[in-house]
Amino acid sequence: MPSLADLQVSSLGPCAYPSPLGSYVAGRETNEYFVSEDDRVLYDDTISLLRRRGEPLETCPSFEPGGPRPQIFHDPATTHVGVVTCGGLCPGLNDVIRAVTLELYTHYGVTQVTGFRNGYAGFDPAHGFEPVDLTPALVGSINERGGTILGTSRGAQDPVVIVDRLVALGIDALIVIGGDGSMHGAHRIVEEITRRGLPIGVVGIPKTIDNDIPHIGQSFGFATAFGEASKAIAAAHVEAESAYNGVGLVKVMGRHAGFIACYAALANHDADFVLIPEVPFSLHGENGLVRSLERRVRERGSAVIVLAEGAGQEHTLATGRSDASGNSRLGDIATIVREAIEKDFHDRGEELTLKFLDPGYGIRAVPADPSDSVYCARLAQVAVHAAMAGRTDMVVGRRRHRFVHVPIPLVIERRHSVNPEGDLWLSVLESTSQPLDMR
Amino acid sequence: MPSLADLQVSSLGPCAYPSPLGSYVAGRETNEYFVSEDDRVLYDDTISLLRRRGEPLETCPSFEPGGPRPQIFHDPATTHVGVVTCGGLCPGLNDVIRAVTLELYTHYGVTQVTGFRNGYAGFDPAHGFEPVDLTPALVGSINERGGTILGTSRGAQDPVVIVDRLVALGIDALIVIGGDGSMHGAHRIVEEITRRGLPIGVVGIPKTIDNDIPHIGQSFGFATAFGEASKAIAAAHVEAESAYNGVGLVKVMGRHAGFIACYAALANHDADFVLIPEVPFSLHGENGLVRSLERRVRERGSAVIVLAEGAGQEHTLATGRSDASGNSRLGDIATIVREAIEKDFHDRGEELTLKFLDPGYGIRAVPADPSDSVYCARLAQVAVHAAMAGRTDMVVGRRRHRFVHVPIPLVIERRHSVNPEGDLWLSVLESTSQPLDMR
Amino acid sequence: MPSLADLQVSSLGPCAYPSPLGSYVAGRETNEYFVSEDDRVLYDDTISLLRRRGEPLETCPSFEPGGPRPQIFHDPATTHVGVVTCGGLCPGLNDVIRAVTLELYTHYGVTQVTGFRNGYAGFDPAHGFEPVDLTPALVGSINERGGTILGTSRGAQDPVVIVDRLVALGIDALIVIGGDGSMHGAHRIVEEITRRGLPIGVVGIPKTIDNDIPHIGQSFGFATAFGEASKAIAAAHVEAESAYNGVGLVKVMGRHAGFIACYAALANHDADFVLIPEVPFSLHGENGLVRSLERRVRERGSAVIVLAEGAGQEHTLATGRSDASGNSRLGDIATIVREAIEKDFHDRGEELTLKFLDPGYGIRAVPADPSDSVYCARLAQVAVHAAMAGRTDMVVGRRRHRFVHVPIPLVIERRHSVNPEGDLWLSVLESTSQPLDMR
Amino acid sequence: MPSLADLQVSSLGPCAYPSPLGSYVAGRETNEYFVSEDDRVLYDDTISLLRRRGEPLETCPSFEPGGPRPQIFHDPATTHVGVVTCGGLCPGLNDVIRAVTLELYTHYGVTQVTGFRNGYAGFDPAHGFEPVDLTPALVGSINERGGTILGTSRGAQDPVVIVDRLVALGIDALIVIGGDGSMHGAHRIVEEITRRGLPIGVVGIPKTIDNDIPHIGQSFGFATAFGEASKAIAAAHVEAESAYNGVGLVKVMGRHAGFIACYAALANHDADFVLIPEVPFSLHGENGLVRSLERRVRERGSAVIVLAEGAGQEHTLATGRSDASGNSRLGDIATIVREAIEKDFHDRGEELTLKFLDPGYGIRAVPADPSDSVYCARLAQVAVHAAMAGRTDMVVGRRRHRFVHVPIPLVIERRHSVNPEGDLWLSVLESTSQPLDMR
Repeated sequence: MPSLADLQVSSLGPCAYPSPLGSYVAGRETNEYFVSEDDRVLYDDTISLLRRRGEPLETCPSFEPGGPRPQIFHDPATTHVGVVTCGGLCPGLNDVIRAVTLELYTHYGVTQVTGFRNGYAGFDPAHGFEPVDLTPALVGSINERGGTILGTSRGAQDPVVIVDRLVALGIDALIVIGGDGSMHGAHRIVEEITRRGLPIGVVGIPKTIDNDIPHIGQSFGFATAFGEASKAIAAAHVEAESAYNGVGLVKVMGRHAGFIACYAALANHDADFVLIPEVPFSLHGENGLVRSLERRVRERGSAVIVLAEGAGQEHTLATGRSDASGNSRLGDIATIVREAIEKDFHDRGEELTLKFLDPGYGIRAVPADPSDSVYCARLAQVAVHAAMAGRTDMVVGRRRHRFVHVPIPLVIERRHSVNPEGDLWLSVLESTSQPLDMR
Repeated sequence: MPSLADLQVSSLGPCAYPSPLGSYVAGRETNEYFVSEDDRVLYDDTISLLRRRGEPLETCPSFEPGGPRPQIFHDPATTHVGVVTCGGLCPGLNDVIRAVTLELYTHYGVTQVTGFRNGYAGFDPAHGFEPVDLTPALVGSINERGGTILGTSRGAQDPVVIVDRLVALGIDALIVIGGDGSMHGAHRIVEEITRRGLPIGVVGIPKTIDNDIPHIGQSFGFATAFGEASKAIAAAHVEAESAYNGVGLVKVMGRHAGFIACYAALANHDADFVLIPEVPFSLHGENGLVRSLERRVRERGSAVIVLAEGAGQEHTLATGRSDASGNSRLGDIATIVREAIEKDFHDRGEELTLKFLDPGYGIRAVPADPSDSVYCARLAQVAVHAAMAGRTDMVVGRRRHRFVHVPIPLVIERRHSVNPEGDLWLSVLESTSQPLDMR
Repeated sequence: MPSLADLQVSSLGPCAYPSPLGSYVAGRETNEYFVSEDDRVLYDDTISLLRRRGEPLETCPSFEPGGPRPQIFHDPATTHVGVVTCGGLCPGLNDVIRAVTLELYTHYGVTQVTGFRNGYAGFDPAHGFEPVDLTPALVGSINERGGTILGTSRGAQDPVVIVDRLVALGIDALIVIGGDGSMHGAHRIVEEITRRGLPIGVVGIPKTIDNDIPHIGQSFGFATAFGEASKAIAAAHVEAESAYNGVGLVKVMGRHAGFIACYAALANHDADFVLIPEVPFSLHGENGLVRSLERRVRERGSAVIVLAEGAGQEHTLATGRSDASGNSRLGDIATIVREAIEKDFHDRGEELTLKFLDPGYGIRAVPADPSDSVYCARLAQVAVHAAMAGRTDMVVGRRRHRFVHVPIPLVIERRHSVNPEGDLWLSVLESTSQPLDMR
Repeated sequence: MPSLADLQVSSLGPCAYPSPLGSYVAGRETNEYFVSEDDRVLYDDTISLLRRRGEPLETCPSFEPGGPRPQIFHDPATTHVGVVTCGGLCPGLNDVIRAVTLELYTHYGVTQVTGFRNGYAGFDPAHGFEPVDLTPALVGSINERGGTILGTSRGAQDPVVIVDRLVALGIDALIVIGGDGSMHGAHRIVEEITRRGLPIGVVGIPKTIDNDIPHIGQSFGFATAFGEASKAIAAAHVEAESAYNGVGLVKVMGRHAGFIACYAALANHDADFVLIPEVPFSLHGENGLVRSLERRVRERGSAVIVLAEGAGQEHTLATGRSDASGNSRLGDIATIVREAIEKDFHDRGEELTLKFLDPGYGIRAVPADPSDSVYCARLAQVAVHAAMAGRTDMVVGRRRHRFVHVPIPLVIERRHSVNPEGDLWLSVLESTSQPLDMR
């Protein structure tokens, strides 16, 4: 559990301007709309944990709540906000871009909103990517399409070059929509800004289709993504059931965290085995995958395996290579699993109809579903509130349904993953009836 | 805010049987799976509120957490569980029935699961509805269809008759899936059980497509429902934009709470006005609906109005009638709004193309979307854990993403509604740019 | 059956310009691409019918085939094409606008394409609707949205005013996308053009969500529309099955023709009764609706009725009124049916749970499904080929999967309707098992 | 063009029993429902072709029309019908099984309907697959699921074994739902039946997700399949547009025929290049794929390539191997194309973001869309009419929207493929603007 100090968010300075949002609550007696500057939200709400700490509430770990402040740091009349999307696609990126733009225009009266193209590369004049003027007209219905109208790319850029560009364009606040690597980059931008003593804020909106960023609750687009992935599982189930000794093998995203595999499997209950990076399995042990599958097919005539791409890396040859974002290249567990199953059925003289499905990019290029659309819009509004209030080096999150501010260093120090003893994984075990310990 | 005493859940007695789920965690050093009997989850996690109370943590209002217990009350070998669905349809009912059945069979080893047909009427022998034997084979893929395989009905039944039937069939625990009225009924059943001193538990799974039950977080099926409703708004938007002076009027569910209207409007941003029961509006004031619409159509050429069925009841003639569930009949606000708009355009000599859409039952008869499917499955598992642990007169909820137990009296004493000063309504105002005060 | 003379298409004059499409087939030995000017497609391909005529093939009724001609009438370098959408919405309108524009730009090199706004009203300067310059950039992805970017309206305009506007803007060919009434209007425009001796062509693309225009095969958007309508039937089925004595009543479009009701009912087999304008039924006869429904509910516990809006008009009071397109106002058969059923159950002392669904505009505002998208694109290409070849006073159709040209007078002289002795209606009877003769 | 003799359908003998369907038309003056035994439908309806033959109508090639006959061959009271599904999955299989069963039960009064499991293997007692009793209750809502409830398999079986089984079970008519290979098998079964002089009919319902069976019009499930495939193209388009120098490469089904690639590309217009087996292309020529792609990416920033799995086989090493159905194993053109593109961008020092999508089995395991559902139901009814009328060695088709009977030898003698000079391919060229001749 992080300490209270870890959870303190940085700020550019005191908030001297009244928020234009004050008009919403003018004349009301009570005012539940604005967030009080000295309020906090407990990091943990379980009494046993709090009791164990034995501390007064004031020193218990707690978050700064997200939301509009009565006073803000930047003068809306002159503020210029930059927006950039980085890393792989995720459903909802255009919803976020749209809501950031509309919130700035229609509620803060900020009319300088600049979108940088193709990720951090868009800041480097050497690439020649012209920034885009984000206006309500331009963003009006972009939420209906997947992807990001700003384009994206993987990989870091020199923070000196980026800050030079921010200064050249007069950007006061930069909103970075990106994942783990992009937040590392955002933090380096903050360091460079701090070094130069500039009043420029950097606020992140964490994007991770794998849902593996800690402290922020469920990430935007994740629900849409696992919903799409569940369609591939349903297709694999149909294929497997229609064949004699049919086995469906579905590879889904999840390099380090098996959330997509778990939720997609729970969404339609068609999976018989779920394999995730957090839970090792043996291929050939008595309760290993091959033997367990053999038994399942004998009992039911068919079976479906859902495989997170990062599962069972212990069975692959480490490639030792990395991609442009610094992610290590994963070994090809799907082929290893597939060949092990085929060999087993062949050796036993049994027929096998194995179908492999890899929905791949198909699950991340779709538009956000209605729930994610609402979530993206509200998350973006919270990010704008934070940026206008002069917050920096932080991301917005929705932990336990409360919008909160989380310091960037905290979200990049480790990954969020499926707890093999938690209720999600137990729900998966209940749904699949796979062996507790596949060895 | 409820007091700690209000939040205490009733129990049939001490838990003497070891949970069969113990096998999941056998041999593990740590055990995060089982819920500790003396743990609690804070009702509120905002420090300012807690500070204002000035109480020690132990006496702050808190919930009993949901989840599996290491010891249970009912002996799985002999336990007989009843299930009933009551009231209007809601996406996910079959997911819940399925998961309750599978959790009982595959994890607790309970093999007597009886479904009562057509709501509380199913308990009355006079109706002659034969109960259904719920088995894994029967419930296998019912989640793919909307509705409820058990059938449902509105209206109360004599608790004496119901308890007689429970006793006659040897039911040890009854799981009631229903709304506000059904939970009133469940409480009366508990009272009758208590009067007779029987060891029969009653656990509710709150169903409300309007999301208007308090303390339980977002209700199951709600996300699917507003996603469907948002399609009607999109259609109204297309109709309005394709016509000269086009106005789309969409009526959505929401007798007492405007959640569906708000979320559906946020999901696609196609609404220009959202009218909900919680926020009164005038038809003819300077900022009233008719004048505001007139201005909006002049500026943009078209407009879309989303109207919760219970909005603006002050403009209707109270019918004074009630339906079988005791819900009062609502006045027909849609017709009043429609005629006021048509008269206004007519009086001004302006053309008008007004299209009225009422998706009606179409939004509640669909299968649950993937997120709701997962949610239903997990909520049902928590209800089964509670029932097996001997809890009674309570419902399960997922407040701020934590599964909790809530006493039935607490969820029926008032309705949950949209806070006109809260961030949801402000997000709606931001999305629609409708006047803050439509008078 | 129309005579050969009825099927002759009018032309502005001889085709003197080589088609730019010639580049596609340059150097090929055979050339199956271009349509030969003297080829024809038989109106009927059934030998018994042809035999009965006893005529030589040359005088048998036949259509001019659609498709590209080697020589065209208009000089692409100077041609200016107008496009207008009229009447109610239908899935695929934007697909058609898009494909007309792209075909003209990319294949004929025509770069003057003007869209008139809001139907025929857009030609009248008095309305002040500025025409839109249709370009590939503008139409690029409009197919993803329902409705029509040009707007639409019902009602006729003075052909003199319209032709004045065509002349003023230098339009050489006008493409009218509209229904029955709009084609009447198009014919009057042709008459006015002819009176003035102008070389302006008018080519129609028939739009009818009811599929009730004769000779043209299935109309574009119809498949998407009945697919949407079938969702309402499925919802009604779920509602009915979940209730005791549940009856679902679904009203679908179909003023004069019951095609949507028939196809939507066949698409999911959930309907027990289909009522269409072409087949009268009695309410109270022994095999009438009420008695038949009573029997069905007794046997199966529930039933679903699909009602085309124009069905059973003999049971309604003729309103005698018409709408702006000249369509007579229909009597409200849905209420009559509903009340008859409710009275019957009430009189018999039986419970009834009747749910009424009216998907209404929701089925016509959606984007075209993939099959309709392809169809719209190809139909639009055929219309452009016809327009460039100087055809006029005609519509394009796809009769028995062959693209053909049909004179406008032929498509407006009567409506296409469901043949009560044909195989479509028999398939419906087979699917519903409703009485052959509901009297 | 086949000769008239080629189009003659075999029959088991004269039709001596009155059709139970006669009740539908009893008492009607005209009777358009029953098909007259001596009617025919012209094979070609183009006058130029007919004229060129210079024959009387009676000797022009023509089909026997499908539909109900007034007299039938089999006595419904004693008839036993078998059903089998063979080969790969295709949307609509369950719709067909359902409609065959219901048509037999509810209209012909045939109550012995047996489903053989797992393709032709289901006839061989050695496999021990118990046949399934197909009843209205069993097939009631199977159309809501993809796949086939009967299971399927590839590969032939000894016709002697199959006919032995038919005789043992007393099957009078066998309905085979399968593709090219399965129809070869059906023909061999007919030969064996004929050799033994048995009165058993074999009627095929052609299943080909690739739409490559000749003479039958569009195959069932094809529209659903290309609709699904178009989603992968849309995803590839989103990915490509969101990246700098983004290229999407989508592999779709189509071993010998590029119909899915063509229609899926036309359905959303997102493809820049469509590569199909029927149209050779060079990788490295001036207008070859690599150069053309280079130009397209330079102009538009991104591009999408749709690749039928059987395209460009001239660039692959023939594997010389075959699968269980006798289909030759295709070379891996996707990898060759991908590597050629990657090498080219690398050699030119250009960045490239290439994303590969293979929707694979995901497009064939979905339920039929509403149009295909209707089509499957009606096609199945026509097959039942043919079987009851004693037809054999034939398949049903819907050529130019007319249901017809086609002799099996005719549909297996060659494959249907995209005509590189026809209007479909030209429409694709128009939609993509790819070079006419990619060399």
